[in-house]
Amino acid sequence: MPSLLENYRDINDIKKMSLEQQRRLALEIRKFLIDKVSKTGGHLASNLGVVELTLSIFNVFNLNKDKLIWDVGHQAYIHKILTGRKDKFDTLRQFGGISGFPKRNESIYDFFETGHSSTSISAALGMARARDLKNENYDVVAVIGDGALTGGMALEALNDVGYRKTKLVIILNDNQMSIAKNVGGVSRYLSKIRMDPKYNRLKEEVESTLKKIPNIGNGMAKYLERIKKGIKQMVVPGMFFEDMGIKYLGPIDGHDLEGLTEVLSRARNIKGPVIIHVITKKGKGYEFAEKNPGKFHGIGPFHCDSGEVCFSSCDSYSKAFGEEMVELAAKNKNIVAITAAMRDGTGLKPFSEEFPDRFFDVGIAEQHAVTLAAGMAREGLKPVFAVYSTFLQRAYDQILHDVCIQKLPVVFAIDRAGIVGDDGETHQGVFDLSYLTHIPNMTVMSPKSIPELRYMLKWATMQNYPIALRYPRGGDSINDSIEPLKDFERGKWEKIYDKGSIALVAQGKMVQHAIMARQKLLNSGIDVRVINACFVKPIDKELIKDLSEQNVNIVTIEDNVVHGGLGSSVLEYMNTLDKKVKVLNLGFNDEFIPHGKTDILYKTYGLDVDGIIKNILKIV
Amino acid sequence: MPSLLENYRDINDIKKMSLEQQRRLALEIRKFLIDKVSKTGGHLASNLGVVELTLSIFNVFNLNKDKLIWDVGHQAYIHKILTGRKDKFDTLRQFGGISGFPKRNESIYDFFETGHSSTSISAALGMARARDLKNENYDVVAVIGDGALTGGMALEALNDVGYRKTKLVIILNDNQMSIAKNVGGVSRYLSKIRMDPKYNRLKEEVESTLKKIPNIGNGMAKYLERIKKGIKQMVVPGMFFEDMGIKYLGPIDGHDLEGLTEVLSRARNIKGPVIIHVITKKGKGYEFAEKNPGKFHGIGPFHCDSGEVCFSSCDSYSKAFGEEMVELAAKNKNIVAITAAMRDGTGLKPFSEEFPDRFFDVGIAEQHAVTLAAGMAREGLKPVFAVYSTFLQRAYDQILHDVCIQKLPVVFAIDRAGIVGDDGETHQGVFDLSYLTHIPNMTVMSPKSIPELRYMLKWATMQNYPIALRYPRGGDSINDSIEPLKDFERGKWEKIYDKGSIALVAQGKMVQHAIMARQKLLNSGIDVRVINACFVKPIDKELIKDLSEQNVNIVTIEDNVVHGGLGSSVLEYMNTLDKKVKVLNLGFNDEFIPHGKTDILYKTYGLDVDGIIKNILKIV
Repeated sequence: MPSLLENYRDINDIKKMSLEQQRRLALEIRKFLIDKVSKTGGHLASNLGVVELTLSIFNVFNLNKDKLIWDVGHQAYIHKILTGRKDKFDTLRQFGGISGFPKRNESIYDFFETGHSSTSISAALGMARARDLKNENYDVVAVIGDGALTGGMALEALNDVGYRKTKLVIILNDNQMSIAKNVGGVSRYLSKIRMDPKYNRLKEEVESTLKKIPNIGNGMAKYLERIKKGIKQMVVPGMFFEDMGIKYLGPIDGHDLEGLTEVLSRARNIKGPVIIHVITKKGKGYEFAEKNPGKFHGIGPFHCDSGEVCFSSCDSYSKAFGEEMVELAAKNKNIVAITAAMRDGTGLKPFSEEFPDRFFDVGIAEQHAVTLAAGMAREGLKPVFAVYSTFLQRAYDQILHDVCIQKLPVVFAIDRAGIVGDDGETHQGVFDLSYLTHIPNMTVMSPKSIPELRYMLKWATMQNYPIALRYPRGGDSINDSIEPLKDFERGKWEKIYDKGSIALVAQGKMVQHAIMARQKLLNSGIDVRVINACFVKPIDKELIKDLSEQNVNIVTIEDNVVHGGLGSSVLEYMNTLDKKVKVLNLGFNDEFIPHGKTDILYKTYGLDVDGIIKNILKIV
Repeated sequence: MPSLLENYRDINDIKKMSLEQQRRLALEIRKFLIDKVSKTGGHLASNLGVVELTLSIFNVFNLNKDKLIWDVGHQAYIHKILTGRKDKFDTLRQFGGISGFPKRNESIYDFFETGHSSTSISAALGMARARDLKNENYDVVAVIGDGALTGGMALEALNDVGYRKTKLVIILNDNQMSIAKNVGGVSRYLSKIRMDPKYNRLKEEVESTLKKIPNIGNGMAKYLERIKKGIKQMVVPGMFFEDMGIKYLGPIDGHDLEGLTEVLSRARNIKGPVIIHVITKKGKGYEFAEKNPGKFHGIGPFHCDSGEVCFSSCDSYSKAFGEEMVELAAKNKNIVAITAAMRDGTGLKPFSEEFPDRFFDVGIAEQHAVTLAAGMAREGLKPVFAVYSTFLQRAYDQILHDVCIQKLPVVFAIDRAGIVGDDGETHQGVFDLSYLTHIPNMTVMSPKSIPELRYMLKWATMQNYPIALRYPRGGDSINDSIEPLKDFERGKWEKIYDKGSIALVAQGKMVQHAIMARQKLLNSGIDVRVINACFVKPIDKELIKDLSEQNVNIVTIEDNVVHGGLGSSVLEYMNTLDKKVKVLNLGFNDEFIPHGKTDILYKTYGLDVDGIIKNILKIV
C-alpha cells in the first residue's frame, strides 16, 4: 500500500480522506514519530497523545484562514509534519534545524510561538478579538493541556474569555498529566467529569423521564423548576466552565477520529467561546511511552525496540541536588521541597518518596510556589523551591515582593541555568543573573561543579535570608582535580589559581571553562588567575579591589547575558574604585539563543574554551 | 458616653463587648478613619468596607496565636487601629510614619507583608502547612477581595488548597470591585450566587420535600439519587469552590456583626479548607465614598463634609497619556487599550468611554494582559497596555517570552515608574529599567516631560516592535521652557545643553532635575551638558563615543536602581571603548525604598537637585 504520509502534500489533504485512511495515516504518523524521535531525541509522549486530535483539527478547520495555537508547543510535531516539515525531522532540535516548538520563521502555519505553559488562551483570545475588531471571519483554536490549565495566566484568560463572549475554540487536551501526574483542585474536578463519560446520554434520558412527572401543584412548581435545573447542573458536566460563560462540550475520547471530527464541527458553529474536553493518553500507541509517559515526555535518543535510552545519563546537577536534598532533609526536619510540576526533572523524585509529607508539587504554578515558600519560611520552615531558570521568570514579582522585601529564607534551586540546548530560545536560562541580582536582599550563588553544588545547598539551607543557587543542565565538563568549596562566607570568592596579570572571574560551569582555558594558555607560556565567583551577588569587593591594586586585569565569564549580570556588577564596582584596571565582560549578547547542542552554542557564542582564550588574548 | 475606641487596649477587648458595644465601636472607627484619612490621604473606601469584618475576625480568632493575612493590605487600617497603632494614624503613609500596608516591623500582628494583589492564599497556605508539619495548633485566615481572586496566582493557590485539604480559612470579601468595577467570568459566577441569598434555607426545604417523593421503582432509583445530588448542586451555592475541594459558607452580609461572628465561628471548626463568602460595600458608612468608591479607593487629603479633595489634581502624566490615547485612537483604528483593573489610575477612562469596543479591562491579570496584547499585535492591532511599573513585574516572563521573542509591536505604557511615594516599598517603580533592558528585542523609552510623553506615545504606536514607555507618577517639576522632542529616532538621544566637560545623561523626570542642577551650577560658574536619554535601550552609542573622544566625563541619572539600568548600560559600553572617560552612576542603591513624599525620598536618596550637584562636584 502506498504510504499516505509520504504522499501528504497539502495541509488540507486530510479532508479528502476516508475515516479508514485517516486511521492508517495516524498509524503511519506514530511510526514516523517514534522512528525520528528515537534518533534525535525530543518530546515523544505528548505528540503520540495528540495524533488523532491534530488530524481532526486539520480536518475540520482550514488553516489557510483559521489560526491554531498549541499551548507549550511541544506537542506540535504532527502539526509540523502536516505543514510541510516532514522531511526536516532528521534535524529536529539540532542547531540550524527545525525547532521542537512552533516557530513563525519555519512555517506560515505556526501562528504564535510558544514554549512556556499556559499562554495559548490569552494569545488566541487576543487574535480572536483582533479578528472581530477588523470584521474578519475565521476561527481561532487553542489547544491546552489539563496541566497547563492550572497555570495562573490560563485561568486569568478563562476569566476574560467568559466575560466578553468572544468566539473562540478552546480544546482541553486532558491526559491527566503535566510532565508528571497532575495535581490540584482543577484536576480533581476534571476527573469527576471523566469518571462518568455517559453523562451526555444520561442527560437526555433523565430529561425525558422528568417530563413524565406530573406537576404536583403550584407550590411545587418552583421547586420542580429548580430540580430540573439542578439535574441539568448534574448531568451537564463542565458547569465550572459554563458558569464562567464558556460553552462546554465533552468529555470525548481523543483517539476517536470520528467523534472528534463531529464535536469539533459542532464547536465551530457555536457563536461564543467553547471549550471541548478531550481525553487523551500520553504516549498512545507506543507501549513503552504509554507505560512511562514521564520518561518519554522529553527524551534523548533511544532504541525503538526496547524503549531504552542510548546514553545512560551520567551524573547531573539535578541528580546531585536531589540526593543532597534527601540527606539534608534527614538531618533537618524543617527542610521542605517545592516543585511546580517538575518533580523528576529537578531531581526531587527521591525526596518525594522519602518525605512525601514535606514534598509539595503545586502544579504549573510558579507564582504560587514562591509565595507558598514565603509563607512556609515565615513560620520557620526551610523551603527549597526547585525550578528551571526559564520558568522562574514567571515568579519575578513574587521573588521581589513576597520573599525579598521580607528577607525570608527561601532557597531557590535554579536548575537549567545558562544554555539548555535543544529546547532553544524559550528555554535558555540566560537571564536569571540579570533578573535576580538587581533585587535587594537577594543572594545569588553558583557552584563551579556538581560536588560544590552539594556543599552550597547545605550551606544555603543554614542561612537566614533568600538565596538563589543556579546551576546548569547536565553534568560537568571536567571531573577530576577540581576541589569543591566546602564552606562559604557570604560574598567571598575562591582563588583557584593566583598567579598572572589577568584574572578570569568566572561563575558556575564557566569556572571549568576558565580552568581549561588557563591550562591551554599555560602551555603557551601565559599564566592567568582563575577565580570562582561562587557568589554572583554580593560580589567580592575586597578581592576585586586587591586585583585592581595589583594591576591585574579582569575577564568576567558567565553563561548569562552580560547586561545586568556578573560582569556588569564587577564593572560597576570597579568604576567606583580610584585605581581602575581593565575589565572584559564575556557572556551572551543582547539576543535570544536558538536551539542546538550546548557545545555548539558555547562555541558559537564564544564561551567555549577556545572562544574564551581568543578574548583573553585581546587584552594580554 | 466614653469612647470605646479611645479605651481599646488589648487586641482581644472586642471579645468582651456586647453586640451593641461592637456596633458603637464600628461607628467610632468609621468616624476615626474618615477623620484621619481626610488629613493624610490613603485608602479609605476599602477600609470602610471591612469595619465589621475586621471586628468579627478579632472577635472570633485570637491573634496571639492565630495568623491573619490581608490580601493587598490596603484594607488593614482597622487591623492597625486594633493592634495598638491608633495613635500613629497622623503619620499614616508619611516618611518615617506608619505604612498604609501591613509591615512586620510595625507590629507582631502583621504576620505577612502585602502590597500587590492576590498573594494572601499562597502565603496563608504556606503558613498553615508549616503549622501542620510542626504539629502546632492555630488558625490561619486570609482575607481576599473578589477582585484579587481573579489574579492568576490566587487561582493557582486555590487549586493547591483544595487538593491537599489543609485547614485554612479564606474570607472572600466580595464588594464587586477591584479599584474599579470587577470584570470577568469569576465575577459573573459570584454575582449569580449573590442574586439568591436564600439558597441555604431553600436547600433544607427542598430536601425535606424530596424525601416525601416515593421511590418509583428500581430503574428510577439511580435517577432519583442523581436528582438529589443535582438539587444539592443547585441549592448549595459555591459549588465552584466545593468542586475544587474547598468548603463554601455564605453568602453573608459583611456588615452584620452577629451573622459574621456566627459564620466565622462555624468556619473555625471546619477541619479542611473553607471559604466564607462575605458581601460588603466599599465605602460603607460615608456617603461620598459609597457613591464613588473608586475616587475614595486611594485618595489624597479631602474635606470630610463635602468629600472634595483638598488639592485639585494638576496635569499628570497619566492624564496626558489618556488624552493622547483618545487622539491617536481617533486617527488609527488599530489602536486598542488594555488595562489590568486600573482604568482610572492609568488615565484610560476617556478612552474607555470614547472607544468601548477597543478598551479591554481584563481584571487583575497582568500576565494575561501582556499575552493578550501579543495575540492582538500578531493580528495587526496596535495594543497599548497601560500598567503601573510595579505591577508589570508580574508579567516579566510574558514580556520576554510572548512579546519579545516574536518582536511583537506591543506598547507598554508604564505609569508610576520611579518613586511613587506614599505607597512605599511594595509599589516603588524602581526596577523596571533593570528588568526590561536586559530583554532582547525590547526598546525602552522615557519622556523628559508630560508634553514629550504625548509625542513619544504617538511615535511608539507607529513602530513595529515592542516598546516600553516609562513615566512617573504625578506631574512635572518644571513646566516652562523645556521643549519636548517631537520626533524620535531609535537609540538617538537629545542634547539639551552641549557645553562643558561634564555631561549629565539623565532619563525621564531626572532630566528636569539635571536641568535645574545645571542652572544652579551655572550660577557658580560651572557649565555642564545635559543629555536627555530618551531611549534607555538602545543607548546612543555614537553620542557616548563622541563624549569620550571629547574627554567629557559622564554622570548618569535615573530614578531606578543603578544595577542593570541606564547607568549600567552606559558604563558597559564605555568599557568597550578605547578611549574611556569617567562615568558616575546616580540612581537608587541596592535597597527597597520606603514610603514618604517623593520630594523627601529624592532628597534622602540623593536624587534631588542638591544631591545631584553634590555628586557632580565630586568629579569636577
